[in-house]
Amino acid sequence: MTDSERLGRVVAIGTIGLDDIETPQASANGVLGGSATYACLASRLFAPTTMSSVVGQDFPASHRELLAGRDIDLSSLETADGRTFRWGGRYAENMNVRETTFVELNVLEHFDPQVPRHAVADSFVFLGNTDPNIQLRILDQVVNPRFVVVDSMDFWIEGNRQQVSNVFSRCDCVVLNDEEARLFGGHANIPRAVRTILDLGPTYVVVKRGEFGAALVSDHGWFFAPAYPLEEVVDPTGAGDAFAGAFLGSLAAAGATDQAALRRAVVYGSVVASFTVEAFSVDRLAELTRHDIDSRYVEFGEFAAF
Amino acid sequence: MTDSERLGRVVAIGTIGLDDIETPQASANGVLGGSATYACLASRLFAPTTMSSVVGQDFPASHRELLAGRDIDLSSLETADGRTFRWGGRYAENMNVRETTFVELNVLEHFDPQVPRHAVADSFVFLGNTDPNIQLRILDQVVNPRFVVVDSMDFWIEGNRQQVSNVFSRCDCVVLNDEEARLFGGHANIPRAVRTILDLGPTYVVVKRGEFGAALVSDHGWFFAPAYPLEEVVDPTGAGDAFAGAFLGSLAAAGATDQAALRRAVVYGSVVASFTVEAFSVDRLAELTRHDIDSRYVEFGEFAAF
Repeated sequence: MTDSERLGRVVAIGTIGLDDIETPQASANGVLGGSATYACLASRLFAPTTMSSVVGQDFPASHRELLAGRDIDLSSLETADGRTFRWGGRYAENMNVRETTFVELNVLEHFDPQVPRHAVADSFVFLGNTDPNIQLRILDQVVNPRFVVVDSMDFWIEGNRQQVSNVFSRCDCVVLNDEEARLFGGHANIPRAVRTILDLGPTYVVVKRGEFGAALVSDHGWFFAPAYPLEEVVDPTGAGDAFAGAFLGSLAAAGATDQAALRRAVVYGSVVASFTVEAFSVDRLAELTRHDIDSRYVEFGEFAAF
Repeated sequence: MTDSERLGRVVAIGTIGLDDIETPQASANGVLGGSATYACLASRLFAPTTMSSVVGQDFPASHRELLAGRDIDLSSLETADGRTFRWGGRYAENMNVRETTFVELNVLEHFDPQVPRHAVADSFVFLGNTDPNIQLRILDQVVNPRFVVVDSMDFWIEGNRQQVSNVFSRCDCVVLNDEEARLFGGHANIPRAVRTILDLGPTYVVVKRGEFGAALVSDHGWFFAPAYPLEEVVDPTGAGDAFAGAFLGSLAAAGATDQAALRRAVVYGSVVASFTVEAFSVDRLAELTRHDIDSRYVEFGEFAAF
């Protein structure tokens, strides 16, 4: 048995996209993005990682090589006829405010993700933000997962709350930002909104709060991690997915899902998210090392000590 | 020398008001409020406290008795001809959003606060939010203070930035909420905005972030305290002033202003603020005990441990 077989495996199902990003300072077009991309590039820093997604015929070989070169298992990466998913976003002066400028679903429109058998048993699964009907079909394929983390967004919560609820009730951990939590929970008060979600069945809720950090909530109470105080945020795209990937990767590496492991996972998620936003697209994330992560992890300990 | 003489003394200069408050759930009219009121009721839980403020002839005896009954030194509370300062506020469903419905300055219009000699030397001073010209006159009266904390708001920052800068440069600690920090610092990025303030001279900046907690920043780095996760916020009025009062009171009680004391002071501030918002006006704050505070202080330690 090799080291990597002893570690838990992360399986991330989500999008790969070519992004057009505009910030008050700069812009970039056709750069590598998507929830599965960010989640896998974060997760692989901790544990063996399988990506399930789809790209089109136009997906640049260099992007595929970048992913493969980071030890991400691409055996479930489908290449379909047509163009790769494309997304555009524009950030306001306050980088927490983002406007979607366009969405081209392209090959995503008929994507029916297949989770590879070898990656299923005992794995740590990330269900990236997508149609809850697709998330349910994935859950049907996953047998005996160790831990399932799900993401969603306002579009699905408003359009198909019942199916989103069905998904949440079958997962171990729901990851949302504060506005999504308020929207789903039907209450402006976050602790109350979170209770609504916990009542559906998941053991944990993680509320991502952008520049204000992240909170982990369960029946055992609250844990708060700050965001790293960066003087320059270059591109916030993918921070939430990188958070989820590092969160799950660190659980897989620990082989544990107890309260202590979950708290450490939130800090690892926050650390990796903080690096991710330091450059456009995956430029910083793809070059990240465990040494970078461990140094900043220590700083997080100092942020909260009293 | 008695116990209370050995302790540092807090001197809080600010407003006393009669507030009309409206929340989505309830409303209250003519209730006790004002920055000095909240700050002193919080501070007196930790250290001897002197209040410098003004009320009108209409100020109810019951309110004065409430303050005096909480061991607050009222020898610098002036009673002027005319009506007491009045303020009205309305909270949105998201309790972080507040609209001022009216302001009647009344006796505040000609208030020229005198800081009593016996309370000045070696004291811990809170300059509540007011005209920076008044704050400067107070600073001129305070000889050899141990530690000076100042609050301000958008109205003064936009209207008289130079004088606000002059005040900040003469204080040890500037306490602002995140929007005020962004406004004064001229940058949407909080770490950069905070650097602008630190560059003026104060050793510490505290950024109050409402439901997201508070951050203490100095050249020694960042400290983050979460907000207590309350499922019901009844009335957020005065939370920031109660924070400042408990913050300063705990420093005075410790007789210390080092990094460790400052961090504990931020947690005490957060604890007392969290109780303050549990009821209208000062209803909860006025009944608070050290036992209540110490219990919740322990919980704050658990929120951040990993």
